[in-house]
Amino acid sequence: MAEAVNTPESRFLRACRGLPVDCTPIWLMRQAGRYMPEYRALREKYTILEMIRTPELAAEVTLQPMRAFDLDAAIIFADILPPLVGMGLELSFVPGKGPVIHNPISSTHDVDLLGTPPAKAHLAPTLEAIEIVVRELAPRGLPLIGFAGAPFTLASYAIEGGGSKDYAKTKALMYAEPAAWKRLMDKLVTVQADYLLEQARAGAAALQVFDSWAGMALGKEAYLRYVAPYNTRLFTTLERAGVPVINFSTGTFPYLEEVAACGGDVIGVDFRMPLSAAWGKIGYDRAIQGNLDPITLLAPWRELRHHVDRVLDEAGGRPGHIFNLGHGIHRTTPVDNVRRLVDYVHARSREYAD
Amino acid sequence: MAEAVNTPESRFLRACRGLPVDCTPIWLMRQAGRYMPEYRALREKYTILEMIRTPELAAEVTLQPMRAFDLDAAIIFADILPPLVGMGLELSFVPGKGPVIHNPISSTHDVDLLGTPPAKAHLAPTLEAIEIVVRELAPRGLPLIGFAGAPFTLASYAIEGGGSKDYAKTKALMYAEPAAWKRLMDKLVTVQADYLLEQARAGAAALQVFDSWAGMALGKEAYLRYVAPYNTRLFTTLERAGVPVINFSTGTFPYLEEVAACGGDVIGVDFRMPLSAAWGKIGYDRAIQGNLDPITLLAPWRELRHHVDRVLDEAGGRPGHIFNLGHGIHRTTPVDNVRRLVDYVHARSREYAD
Repeated sequence: MAEAVNTPESRFLRACRGLPVDCTPIWLMRQAGRYMPEYRALREKYTILEMIRTPELAAEVTLQPMRAFDLDAAIIFADILPPLVGMGLELSFVPGKGPVIHNPISSTHDVDLLGTPPAKAHLAPTLEAIEIVVRELAPRGLPLIGFAGAPFTLASYAIEGGGSKDYAKTKALMYAEPAAWKRLMDKLVTVQADYLLEQARAGAAALQVFDSWAGMALGKEAYLRYVAPYNTRLFTTLERAGVPVINFSTGTFPYLEEVAACGGDVIGVDFRMPLSAAWGKIGYDRAIQGNLDPITLLAPWRELRHHVDRVLDEAGGRPGHIFNLGHGIHRTTPVDNVRRLVDYVHARSREYAD
Repeated sequence: MAEAVNTPESRFLRACRGLPVDCTPIWLMRQAGRYMPEYRALREKYTILEMIRTPELAAEVTLQPMRAFDLDAAIIFADILPPLVGMGLELSFVPGKGPVIHNPISSTHDVDLLGTPPAKAHLAPTLEAIEIVVRELAPRGLPLIGFAGAPFTLASYAIEGGGSKDYAKTKALMYAEPAAWKRLMDKLVTVQADYLLEQARAGAAALQVFDSWAGMALGKEAYLRYVAPYNTRLFTTLERAGVPVINFSTGTFPYLEEVAACGGDVIGVDFRMPLSAAWGKIGYDRAIQGNLDPITLLAPWRELRHHVDRVLDEAGGRPGHIFNLGHGIHRTTPVDNVRRLVDYVHARSREYAD
């Protein structure tokens, strides 16, 4: 960081492009969430879907962690699943169980019935929430990240009807009905590309694509055959957005080069792989985001600091590191640990500039 | 396989030691299970725990797939969790939900209350079932595999109270209470080493240690610090058994060398990593077991065969490959596909000997 310049307002975006920064930027996946008392207070009055579908509430929740902590980016409060509703699936969030799709895809005919409506028709509240947040954050020079799920991850929810341990139905369709799988993935690329481009138009300064489950479900050959072509098309289309794109996945270390080859300016990695090994695989000309184990935030600060130091040391102060968790923040995380984490990452990474 | 000799009776055990065989041995994780109509017929009359705790029933279920298919090894019908019952935890299998521990570990005090009784006191039915199966299989020259869970995987069930998506409670104890974690893992090593040694004494010709969740839950540094010392001690103790030991884990590709360094004559790998890359990491002087994605067995044979060919081609006919799935067989697997798989692996791998 010898050439570091003091431009806090664009720290995150500079790091996305691999440019020197005064200190390592940090934001946290699911930073607007149940670990915050302000969030829980709103959740007592509204369901998750009500909060997502009311622009003022989504904007408020998005801004809560920006007020509480010195974070370098906001991420719009939303969920990866609402685009499936526009396609014809019925979604609800069941307390204690998580998301449930009430009419999951169970045949190739179901695939053909899925629509591909434009985001403006079905996801307008999220686009409007983005506009509100951007108006709020722009004067402070803070960027807002938009996001969506990658096609495989969305397909797995649409077919399993919710979360899954083995993705058996998803992979059975994929392996046994390759033509239907292609039609499904094509539709998902269409819907997700449109949704992400609209988020950029609404003011999102960066976009993150979550492929949360492909790496847990698939080996390298299956990834290359059934996922990579669609992710590549999605990332290629997103180049039109003119903003940095983050390609996040979990469990993909065995074929991280191939994941990175699909696209994205920044590769987001999970806590299962050492950051240094991951960066070596994707190449130091590409920015990297990660990868503290979110559960370390439940430990006392002395123990937590050891894990934070390790991530910073593995990044070694190279330009192009965005500090983040290796998965979403846990709902039992102490707020004080989040504050200390954010401030410590800024302070400690300045040392590399010295 | 130039030096291959025709010793079908010891094909599996020869492969465990890296010796040439006439064709690749094959067995399937969870090969005694719900995909078989014979198994489902018994399950209508008995619960899983009744079947495990009745030696004659456990032996019968173990032998069902040996009658139906030309498998090269049996694995005793049991479960990884019953050892926890002897330690003081209450276990049941809830239909549609899986295993539930009704009094999970939730404090360091709970750890101290756990007992470490000998397997002979609490797990005698499984040891007796092993003796019955061995009497049945020995005349046919077929080996029986005993098994148990690795300490981390058992700890995760004991602390979460069942399956988990994020292992948050387990890792919170691990990160925040390292002294209690050590006491817990020490106790689990004691119990599991004793249990596995007793299985070998009862006649098991090989032992498999399942560390099913460590790789899904932990990164490399955490694995080395909180898991590897205990696995190493377990595998070192098992050398006394005088039978081959299989070290199976999932999601551990980012640190497979370190997993293999803990011990085991055979390294079992999941479907997420290419077999060739895994074997290169652990070294060709060590036998390897794996790694067909079990969900490919739900596809038509033409598609399935493509995936089987890939696994065989990655192994390349080298001595020391044991064909298996990369995870347990799925309950909806067509029996015919299992039969074709077993016969095809034998037939196709003979080609490498030519």
